[in-house]
Amino acid sequence: MDTMTTPAVQAPRSPVTRKDVARYAGVSTAVVSYVVNGGPKKVAPATEAKVQDAIRRLGYRPNAAARALKLGSSETIGLVIPDNSNPFFSLLAHAVEEAAAELGYALLLTNSDGNLAKELQHVRNLAARQVDGVILSSVLMEPGLAELESAEIRIVLLNHSADAPGFNSVGVDLLEGAKTAVGHLIGHGHTSIALAMGTNTGNYYDSREEGWLQALAAAGLPEGPIVRSPFTREGGYAAGKRLLASADRPTAIFATSDLQAVGILRALHEAGVSVPGDIALASFDGSAEAEYSWPPLTTVKQPAKAMAEAAVSALIGAHRGNESEHLIFPGELQVRQSCGCP
Amino acid sequence: MDTMTTPAVQAPRSPVTRKDVARYAGVSTAVVSYVVNGGPKKVAPATEAKVQDAIRRLGYRPNAAARALKLGSSETIGLVIPDNSNPFFSLLAHAVEEAAAELGYALLLTNSDGNLAKELQHVRNLAARQVDGVILSSVLMEPGLAELESAEIRIVLLNHSADAPGFNSVGVDLLEGAKTAVGHLIGHGHTSIALAMGTNTGNYYDSREEGWLQALAAAGLPEGPIVRSPFTREGGYAAGKRLLASADRPTAIFATSDLQAVGILRALHEAGVSVPGDIALASFDGSAEAEYSWPPLTTVKQPAKAMAEAAVSALIGAHRGNESEHLIFPGELQVRQSCGCP
Repeated sequence: MDTMTTPAVQAPRSPVTRKDVARYAGVSTAVVSYVVNGGPKKVAPATEAKVQDAIRRLGYRPNAAARALKLGSSETIGLVIPDNSNPFFSLLAHAVEEAAAELGYALLLTNSDGNLAKELQHVRNLAARQVDGVILSSVLMEPGLAELESAEIRIVLLNHSADAPGFNSVGVDLLEGAKTAVGHLIGHGHTSIALAMGTNTGNYYDSREEGWLQALAAAGLPEGPIVRSPFTREGGYAAGKRLLASADRPTAIFATSDLQAVGILRALHEAGVSVPGDIALASFDGSAEAEYSWPPLTTVKQPAKAMAEAAVSALIGAHRGNESEHLIFPGELQVRQSCGCP
Repeated sequence: MDTMTTPAVQAPRSPVTRKDVARYAGVSTAVVSYVVNGGPKKVAPATEAKVQDAIRRLGYRPNAAARALKLGSSETIGLVIPDNSNPFFSLLAHAVEEAAAELGYALLLTNSDGNLAKELQHVRNLAARQVDGVILSSVLMEPGLAELESAEIRIVLLNHSADAPGFNSVGVDLLEGAKTAVGHLIGHGHTSIALAMGTNTGNYYDSREEGWLQALAAAGLPEGPIVRSPFTREGGYAAGKRLLASADRPTAIFATSDLQAVGILRALHEAGVSVPGDIALASFDGSAEAEYSWPPLTTVKQPAKAMAEAAVSALIGAHRGNESEHLIFPGELQVRQSCGCP
């Protein structure tokens, strides 16, 4: 409790200025500026240490609001995702946070809770907060681009697997991923393969359905049953029960998300149906939960880190500027036991 | 493409001011201010609609940086959590976001990745960004309070279950929660109950260990084996394998987090051990993943929403000000099948 040598304790509530720091460290205010902003001029290590010590002792905080006004940048980006309690989106959000931090940007995270109106409201709120741009993972396969344009903020669409004229977008190859997963189930000898897909795709065609169809067609197999449910555990659970009750019960299911597959697994377990013995299962996303379900899920892994880095780069990094570029990443089949592999 | 009636298209890059909006809507700049800030004076609905239309058409964005300078508030709070890919923390983060939004605040979210140095760095960075306060869910049971104080920013500790002098804190009753869960396993007739606990508790005593001990002592039972591992699925998996290999293999396990329990389940399944037949399991947190594991986990649910609201209220809401208040919430046992209940 040495109050004599720590000015911050003597006057804890008075705002500490750059000038105070300069005086305490015995340097010019310009040098304090260089240390705080990492340039433009270099500062000798010993001097920097003195300044950092003064900053710490005095409790100096560079005024970010004043800095944002001056720079015309808040060094912050916004991220809108449907639901960060979906492990795939929490993984994606984490990856975006890390990629933004690499460039010195902080992340304002918002959840749209699968609600389109909330999504647009978040985009507008983020714009009003002067973020440098927004990464939007829309609840719809095809977000309302005209309304997004009206928000007057730079937007990159993430987890978006189709062209979006006027927007940068980053996504995964849904069609090829689905084809690979369904093809793998066919390789296990299945001839009746159901599709458990999402409901919130708007009017847009989910290419995973096309991938499922193409894989079946290529093997000369008939279409299995289709059930639609929300991209949630509960949605998958309901889908699983419906498939179990259907007249043409399939011997395999391709689910368009891990979360739905986890719900399907519960429905199958409760009904005493063995997986993969009675019904095999493959899914899409590659979240951690898929690895720890029982049996572990064979799933198409989306390269979340690479996708997040590409979106951040398009928004504020090296690839900024090309406004209509669409980057598509390949998914990778992760083979575990739910498909029938040992 | 009616460029004659939409000024934003004629001059898309010039900054639109409050004056432009006022002129377009045919109102005073004060009225624009009331609409944008929701007060202090009320505006007639028809006038508000005109102003909102003008804002939308002109692409006006109130300057948040200027506003922050004027108000001395960025209307933003920071949240530091160990890992948002842990479903309990993603649930907590979501609840904090909603509680902050209720008060008109946005959320800057950062992950410390279980790293104490990163946690402190995040707190300091958030302070430099002029957030109005930070909610910290520390990686340690007992964070370095002196170092946090040196960050010179208002901090509320969340998910913190002990007194923290000089700080508001919000947590769950770990001891009673653990006692209840272990007592429930004892009620199923178990006499050898292991404890799977976390490693990153610093020098602080995790009261869940005390709860486990007290429940065993109250029933006159001996202490079961203890394994320590990280609060992750992988950590639980390793803990499960070690318990299976131990000389005094328990007939029941109390895990201090759902994520560890999910890993333990995998280890038991792989070894062909039936749950709850051969080994029963109960855990702590009450995350969604616990409901959808197989068998579903009996777990002590932390009231994430109430805890998040209390933390936000202590930081920026009605309960702001009382700097040393410690709020502790009771956990609630959610009985599912992993314990042996039907």
